[in-house]
Amino acid sequence: MAHAMDIALDRITEIQRTARQEGGIDRPLWPVIVLRTPKGWTGPSEVDGLPVEGTWRSHQVPLAGVRDNGEHLRQLEQWMRSYRPEELFDERGRPREQVLAGVPDGARRLGSTPHANGGLLLRELPVPPLEKYAVAVDKPGATLHEPTRVLGDLLETVMSATSERRDFRIVGPDETASNRLQAVYAASGKAWQAEMLEVDEHLDRHGRVMEILSEHTCQGWLEGYLLTGRHGLFSCYEAFVHIVDSMVNQHIKWLRVTRRLPWRAPIASLNYLLTSHVWRQDHNGFSHQDPGFVDHVLNKSPEVVRVYLPPDTNTLLSVADHTLRSRDYVNVIVAGKQPCFDWLTLDQARAHCARGAGIWPWAGTEDSAREPDVVLAGAGDVPTQEVLAAAQLLRQHLPELAVRVVNVVDLARLLPAEEHPHGMPAAQYDALFTQDKPVIFAYHGYPWLIHRLAYRRTGHHNLHVRGYKEIGTTTTPFDMVVRNDLDRYRLVMDVIDRVPGLAVRAADVRQSMEDTRLRHHAWIREHGTDLPEVADWTWTA
Amino acid sequence: MAHAMDIALDRITEIQRTARQEGGIDRPLWPVIVLRTPKGWTGPSEVDGLPVEGTWRSHQVPLAGVRDNGEHLRQLEQWMRSYRPEELFDERGRPREQVLAGVPDGARRLGSTPHANGGLLLRELPVPPLEKYAVAVDKPGATLHEPTRVLGDLLETVMSATSERRDFRIVGPDETASNRLQAVYAASGKAWQAEMLEVDEHLDRHGRVMEILSEHTCQGWLEGYLLTGRHGLFSCYEAFVHIVDSMVNQHIKWLRVTRRLPWRAPIASLNYLLTSHVWRQDHNGFSHQDPGFVDHVLNKSPEVVRVYLPPDTNTLLSVADHTLRSRDYVNVIVAGKQPCFDWLTLDQARAHCARGAGIWPWAGTEDSAREPDVVLAGAGDVPTQEVLAAAQLLRQHLPELAVRVVNVVDLARLLPAEEHPHGMPAAQYDALFTQDKPVIFAYHGYPWLIHRLAYRRTGHHNLHVRGYKEIGTTTTPFDMVVRNDLDRYRLVMDVIDRVPGLAVRAADVRQSMEDTRLRHHAWIREHGTDLPEVADWTWTA
Repeated sequence: MAHAMDIALDRITEIQRTARQEGGIDRPLWPVIVLRTPKGWTGPSEVDGLPVEGTWRSHQVPLAGVRDNGEHLRQLEQWMRSYRPEELFDERGRPREQVLAGVPDGARRLGSTPHANGGLLLRELPVPPLEKYAVAVDKPGATLHEPTRVLGDLLETVMSATSERRDFRIVGPDETASNRLQAVYAASGKAWQAEMLEVDEHLDRHGRVMEILSEHTCQGWLEGYLLTGRHGLFSCYEAFVHIVDSMVNQHIKWLRVTRRLPWRAPIASLNYLLTSHVWRQDHNGFSHQDPGFVDHVLNKSPEVVRVYLPPDTNTLLSVADHTLRSRDYVNVIVAGKQPCFDWLTLDQARAHCARGAGIWPWAGTEDSAREPDVVLAGAGDVPTQEVLAAAQLLRQHLPELAVRVVNVVDLARLLPAEEHPHGMPAAQYDALFTQDKPVIFAYHGYPWLIHRLAYRRTGHHNLHVRGYKEIGTTTTPFDMVVRNDLDRYRLVMDVIDRVPGLAVRAADVRQSMEDTRLRHHAWIREHGTDLPEVADWTWTA
Repeated sequence: MAHAMDIALDRITEIQRTARQEGGIDRPLWPVIVLRTPKGWTGPSEVDGLPVEGTWRSHQVPLAGVRDNGEHLRQLEQWMRSYRPEELFDERGRPREQVLAGVPDGARRLGSTPHANGGLLLRELPVPPLEKYAVAVDKPGATLHEPTRVLGDLLETVMSATSERRDFRIVGPDETASNRLQAVYAASGKAWQAEMLEVDEHLDRHGRVMEILSEHTCQGWLEGYLLTGRHGLFSCYEAFVHIVDSMVNQHIKWLRVTRRLPWRAPIASLNYLLTSHVWRQDHNGFSHQDPGFVDHVLNKSPEVVRVYLPPDTNTLLSVADHTLRSRDYVNVIVAGKQPCFDWLTLDQARAHCARGAGIWPWAGTEDSAREPDVVLAGAGDVPTQEVLAAAQLLRQHLPELAVRVVNVVDLARLLPAEEHPHGMPAAQYDALFTQDKPVIFAYHGYPWLIHRLAYRRTGHHNLHVRGYKEIGTTTTPFDMVVRNDLDRYRLVMDVIDRVPGLAVRAADVRQSMEDTRLRHHAWIREHGTDLPEVADWTWTA
C-alpha cells in the first residue's frame, strides 16, 4: 500500500511540475489506486457453518447472536483479540505510547486542519457596494428590468474581485446565460478541460463558472467547494432543483449538527438562485412547473434554512448581498428572469428586505385614522404584480375601501418567533396583517405553504391564499395566473367575497371582473397573446 | 440508416434465436446504432454572420428576429421551403396521398398500439384473498407482528400467481430483505445477469425482484414497466425516496394529463412502500430520518396521489390489496418493519381502511350520552402506539375524562371533500373530530402537514399536532418520540394543557408525566435501552 501511494504521489507531483513549469498539459491521466480486499476481511470466516468473510454475508452484522449464542460470543472474542489489543492499550485501557506517537498534533488534528475544517480558510467575499448596480426608481412601477440580468452585473464584479483569490464559483446545469447571468462571462469563462473549437465562446481552462447538465454534480461541486472554505452560487431552473432534494437534506443536516460544534469554523452558505420559475414557462409548460423546493427546505432545521422571494430588481440585489455574505445557511432565492416592474429604490429595498415583510404604503390606502378593511399580501414577483394591479382596480372601482398592501420577501417571517429565528413576534404580525380583517395572500408557490407557516396566527381563519395549484400547461403568462386563480381580477373578487358588506353592494364590480376573465379566455384563443390591458398594464398611483 | 437498422435487427433476431433454441447465452452484446449528425442539421448555416448549423447556436431559436428582421424572415422562409412542402401538402394544406400512405392504421396508430398505450395489455393482478395472510387478533394489542414481513407472504403469492404471466415485479435499492419482504424470494429470485458464485443466494436470470442501489434506476424501471401494462411495487427506505422526488413529479404530471385522454387505457398505479422509517433508525440516525416524501407528493395533483399510513399488520394488508389493484394513481404506503402491536382484525382493518379515518371505540371512552372532552388522533404505526398508551394513562389517571381515539390511515381524508376525491365532507369531519374540542394529533411525519391538510376545518384552531420536528439522532426508539414531543407522556400533558379545567385539577398528573420523561432521560444514558415500563408496555383495556 505504501509503495502504491509513493508511486501515485510521485506521478501527481510530476503532472503538477510539468503543467506549472512547461504549461499546456490537457487532461492528464491522474493516478488511481485500486484496492481490492475481501469483504469483511479479518472478520469471522464462517458463522453457523456458512461462509462470511469474503461474501455478501459480511455486509451486515456477521455475529448476530452474541447475547444468547455462546459460539457467536466466542467467535466475537476471537475476532476482537485478533487485533491484539494488549499491544495497543495499557492495563487502564489507554492507548500505548506507540499508538499515540502516530496521532497528529496542532494544526494537523482533524478538527484543526483546514483540510477538514475549511471554514478556517474562509475570507469575506468582496461583494461591491450595491449602488452601482441598483436600478433607478423615480416612482414605483415606471420601469422594467430583468432582475437576474442585473444580478449578473453584480456577480461579474464579485467574480472579478476574486480573480486572484479564486474562491468564488457559480455552478449550474448549463443555464447561466438562460438565467440571464451571462455578464459574469466577462470576468470568468466556463471551466472546460476538453477540446475547444473555433466556434466556442466563454470557455476557459481556469473558468469559475461551472456548467454541467447534472444538478447532482452541481450540488456536489458546490458542497465540496463551500466545505473547503470558499463561496458560491447555484443557479437553477426552479422545477428541476428537486433533483437534489435528497442531497440538500444531508447538507442541511450536516450544517445543523456542525453549527453546534464549537471548534468548527463557519462556512459560506449554500445559495440557490431559483429562476426560470413556474409562472413563466410559456414554452416549456407543465413539466417545467414546480415551485415546491421551498416547501421541501422549510421542513428542515429552522436554524439553517432561509427562503427569499424578492419582488423586483433592487430587492434581489439586497437579498443577494445578504445571502452571499452569510454563513452556515442554506439560502433559497426565487426570482424571475423576465422583465419585472421596479417597485422599490435601493434604500427602500434594503429596508424592506431587512424587515422581511412590510407595508407598501404607496400601493394601498394607508390612513392612520382607520384600520384597513382588507389586506392584500404578495410574495414573489408575479404575485406582487397581480396584487398591485388588484389594488389599482380596487382604488378605481371601490375607492371607499381601505386597502393595505403588504409584501413578504422573507418567507420565514410568517412563522411564529419561537419556531424560526426570522419568525415575527405575534404583536407585530397582528399589527401588520390585522387580527380580524380578511387577508388575501397571493403567493408564488403552493398556497397551502402559507397556511402551514401562519396557522398559529390569531387572524389565520381570515387568511385566504392564492397560488400555484398544479394547474399547468403551455400558455400565455397571464393565463397561467388566471388558471390558478392568482390573477388581479380573481383577487378583486376575493376581496368582494370576503369583506363584510361588499358582496351585495359590489356585485356589479365582481361581475365585471368575471367578465374580464371570460374575455381573456376568448382573446388568448384568438390572438395567442394576453389582453392588451394586461400586457400593457402599468401602475398608476 | 435503413442498412444500419437491418444489421441491428438481424443481430437481435440472431441473439434471440440462439438464446431460445440453444440456451445459455449470458449478457449478449446488443447492437447499438450511433447516429451522428450536425446539430441543427438543415437549419440556417449562418445567421447574422455567425455559424449556426453544426454549432451550439442551434440549441435555441436560430432565427430570433423574424418579426422585425427581414433577413431573418427570409432565411426562415428559405429553411421551411427546403422541406418542399408543395410535395407534401395539397393546395388546401392537407397531406398528400404519398404522405398518408405511410401513416399506420388500426392497432398500429400511436394511440392504439399497445407498445405506446400499455394499459391495453393490463390484466387484473391476482391478489389472493387476504384471509390466509391476516394475523389473528383476539383482542387489540395482545400480539406483535412485523407488518412488512407479513406483507412479504402476500407478495410471495402474487409473485407465484404471476409466474407464467410475468407481469409483476418488485424493485428496490437492495433492501428487499432489509425491509422484511424476503418471503418473495421463494417465488422469484433477484434478477441477475452477471456471474453467479457458489455463495450467492436468490439470484435468478429471470428474477422479478430487481435490486440495485440506485433509487433512480428503480424508479425508471418501474415507470417503464407500468407504462407497458404491467404491475409493480417499489420498496424503499423512507428517507431516501427523496432521491426520486423529481422523477415522481413527472410521472404524476404524466398521469394527470393522460387520465383526461379518453383513448388512453389506465395503467397500474405506481406503488411505494416506504419502510425502515424515521422512528426506527436506531442505528443509522439523523441521516436516515426524513418523513417528507409524503409532503412532496401531497403538493401534486389530488386526482393522482394517495397516501396511506396503516397502523398495524392487517391494515397494511388491506391497504396493499387496494393499492395493488388500483389504476392511474401514485400510492404511498408508510409502514414499519419492526414488531408492531396488532390492533385490528382483518374485518375491522378492511372497514377502517375503507373509511380511511375512524373512531377506535375500544380504545377510548365512547359514550353516546356525552360528547368527548378531547380527541386523541393518530396516523402512523408509532404514533398510534403512543396514542393508545396515552389513552391508557388518561383512563388510569383521569378516569372521568371522555376521550375519543381516532385513527387516520388515509391522509387525504383530512382534506376538504372539494380538494381531494378522498376528502371528508365537513359534517362528517366535524362529527369525528368535533367542532370545539381539543384534538391532540400524533402524526408520523412533519406535524405542519396535518395543519396544511386540515386548515379549513371548523375545529382547526383546536387542532394540536405532534410529529417529527427534524430532531434526529442515533438513540433508543422511545427517545426519538420523546425528543420530538410525540411520546405518550407528552400527549397526556397536551391533553391536560388543552382541556378546559384540567390544568389546575390535574397538575399532579402532569407533573408525574414530566417526571417520567426525566426518568427516561436518565435511564437511557445509564442502560442504553428504554425504560422497562415503555419497552414492556402492553395495551390493557
